[in-house]
Amino acid sequence: MKKVAIGVDIGGTNTAIGVVDKEGNVMVKTSISTPSHGDIDKYINDLAEAIKEQINSVRLLNEEIEILGIGIGAPNGNYYKGTIEHAPNLSFKGIVPFVQLLKEKFPSLENIALTNDANAAAIGEMIYGGAKGMKNFVMYTLGTGVGSGLVVDGNLVYGADGFAGECGHTMLVPDGRLCGCGAKGHLEAYCSAPGMKRTAFEIIARDNAIGSLLAKFSYEDLESKDIFDAAEKGDKVALEVFKKTGEWLGQGLADTVHHLSPEAIFLFGGPTAAGDYIFKPAKESMEKHLLPIFKNKIPIYPSKLKLGDAAIVGASALVWKEVDA
Amino acid sequence: MKKVAIGVDIGGTNTAIGVVDKEGNVMVKTSISTPSHGDIDKYINDLAEAIKEQINSVRLLNEEIEILGIGIGAPNGNYYKGTIEHAPNLSFKGIVPFVQLLKEKFPSLENIALTNDANAAAIGEMIYGGAKGMKNFVMYTLGTGVGSGLVVDGNLVYGADGFAGECGHTMLVPDGRLCGCGAKGHLEAYCSAPGMKRTAFEIIARDNAIGSLLAKFSYEDLESKDIFDAAEKGDKVALEVFKKTGEWLGQGLADTVHHLSPEAIFLFGGPTAAGDYIFKPAKESMEKHLLPIFKNKIPIYPSKLKLGDAAIVGASALVWKEVDA
Repeated sequence: MKKVAIGVDIGGTNTAIGVVDKEGNVMVKTSISTPSHGDIDKYINDLAEAIKEQINSVRLLNEEIEILGIGIGAPNGNYYKGTIEHAPNLSFKGIVPFVQLLKEKFPSLENIALTNDANAAAIGEMIYGGAKGMKNFVMYTLGTGVGSGLVVDGNLVYGADGFAGECGHTMLVPDGRLCGCGAKGHLEAYCSAPGMKRTAFEIIARDNAIGSLLAKFSYEDLESKDIFDAAEKGDKVALEVFKKTGEWLGQGLADTVHHLSPEAIFLFGGPTAAGDYIFKPAKESMEKHLLPIFKNKIPIYPSKLKLGDAAIVGASALVWKEVDA
Repeated sequence: MKKVAIGVDIGGTNTAIGVVDKEGNVMVKTSISTPSHGDIDKYINDLAEAIKEQINSVRLLNEEIEILGIGIGAPNGNYYKGTIEHAPNLSFKGIVPFVQLLKEKFPSLENIALTNDANAAAIGEMIYGGAKGMKNFVMYTLGTGVGSGLVVDGNLVYGADGFAGECGHTMLVPDGRLCGCGAKGHLEAYCSAPGMKRTAFEIIARDNAIGSLLAKFSYEDLESKDIFDAAEKGDKVALEVFKKTGEWLGQGLADTVHHLSPEAIFLFGGPTAAGDYIFKPAKESMEKHLLPIFKNKIPIYPSKLKLGDAAIVGASALVWKEVDA
């Protein structure tokens, strides 16, 4: 009997659901809408139905499976309480006892666990990816925001209230850019995909960069993929965007190293597809800021999780972590 | 039979040695010179002799005692390896296998452990002080430098190589003041006692502050105690020094909260004697920089360890932590 885990990734628009085996292979997957209407009961019903359908579709493939549990990645997910709390991008307001509600649909499943998406990605890296066998590492996820998952002594750091690992909101530039959280100068305002766009527009304005490939985009239209394409064509503005983004990121990573002394750092998310454009300045900048005892010791790796499946796979890893523990 | 632990605190000039009971009371203590000549074998001999004398002097007090072990706090102390590595303020260069050398003098003692002084202070707070019963907390030690000890899930964070918890070297002001480590803008360059002096001289120069009580001191003579005395007399420069030091500290503490989500923060060391002068702006500044999910949750407490005994007591706590574990 093959053992599998269910991974659920709750995004602002869609909820992805997959059945994942011990090696991190997604056997089947689907998605449903994350509702904009805030009706949690209907959503839980829809989600439970979708999960059952996925389980059945694996069984139809003639696979004998044992379901070990359900792992859920969600914004503002609280691992200790199994709740989603005041998530800005979801229509469910206040504190939603998500795990409890889902357990009512799957009373025979012991392992239903929830955490935020970056923590899930870090556990995914530990169970299936490049951090296998590592006891102390750090993962930064770069996307619409910047998340992080911190692993100390083989366990994810949840902290006193389940919300640890918000490195996207450490200070990068005092009194700097307005962050989505309302404070100023946080790393997320610089190193996320929208942060890169802000950097591009700052450079264009500073240099009056008529002729840059990026000068043809409106602020609303420009995406980080466009910046990468322009960099590949040698566009000066785009190349400087990556250089500065990497330098800022390296400064933040150095702060995290000074806290935790990790064995390695993993970067995950769209902007990391730019490879050396971002990894090289990030590494150089990190080294510049580090104490001598940490210099030239800590590699920065791209995540080994597949971008498309990573959210589901990361969430499912929560289950394997529970079962192994 | 009363169980006791030996605490040893190695400073640049002196090494303090004490016998400490389970409640954190120092029964007897002494100190020897930390040598400036780098002769480690002679120093280990002297230290072992001093420890034996202290043990005998407790026994002479008619106390039947069982020695559980020796805990050592030392700059650049590596807990995993029991080594002191490249400590800038000690005359022992390179990597000194300190625990191994001391074990040769006390072959019957199983527990001989070493870590850096800030980590020892954090364990002291957990075993004897205000952090009793806390599983997730953070301690910053303010003095000649700024150290920190981070506790996650009831254990000190040592990280991959034993050197975690160097929050004094997180970035506060990009391209700011030169730090003792050679990098720029680190928290230690602002929030240590010498950092406060630098702030005072910056303000004096900025405001041409003739008439300030602090304008009478040379840079070499001014100490943080003088700044406190001046603040007590209402000196504007001194009051601004504390306000800015607290604001900077709060910014750094917010970064640590975003990493670890502690239940509480403890501050230790000379400058904390200034009480509200530093705690109030630190708290306000920390709150300003925090994500909403962390706001108004995390108290900042003064350490409950006695300043004079804390180093010995903290070091001895390493032993109790090992024995309890």
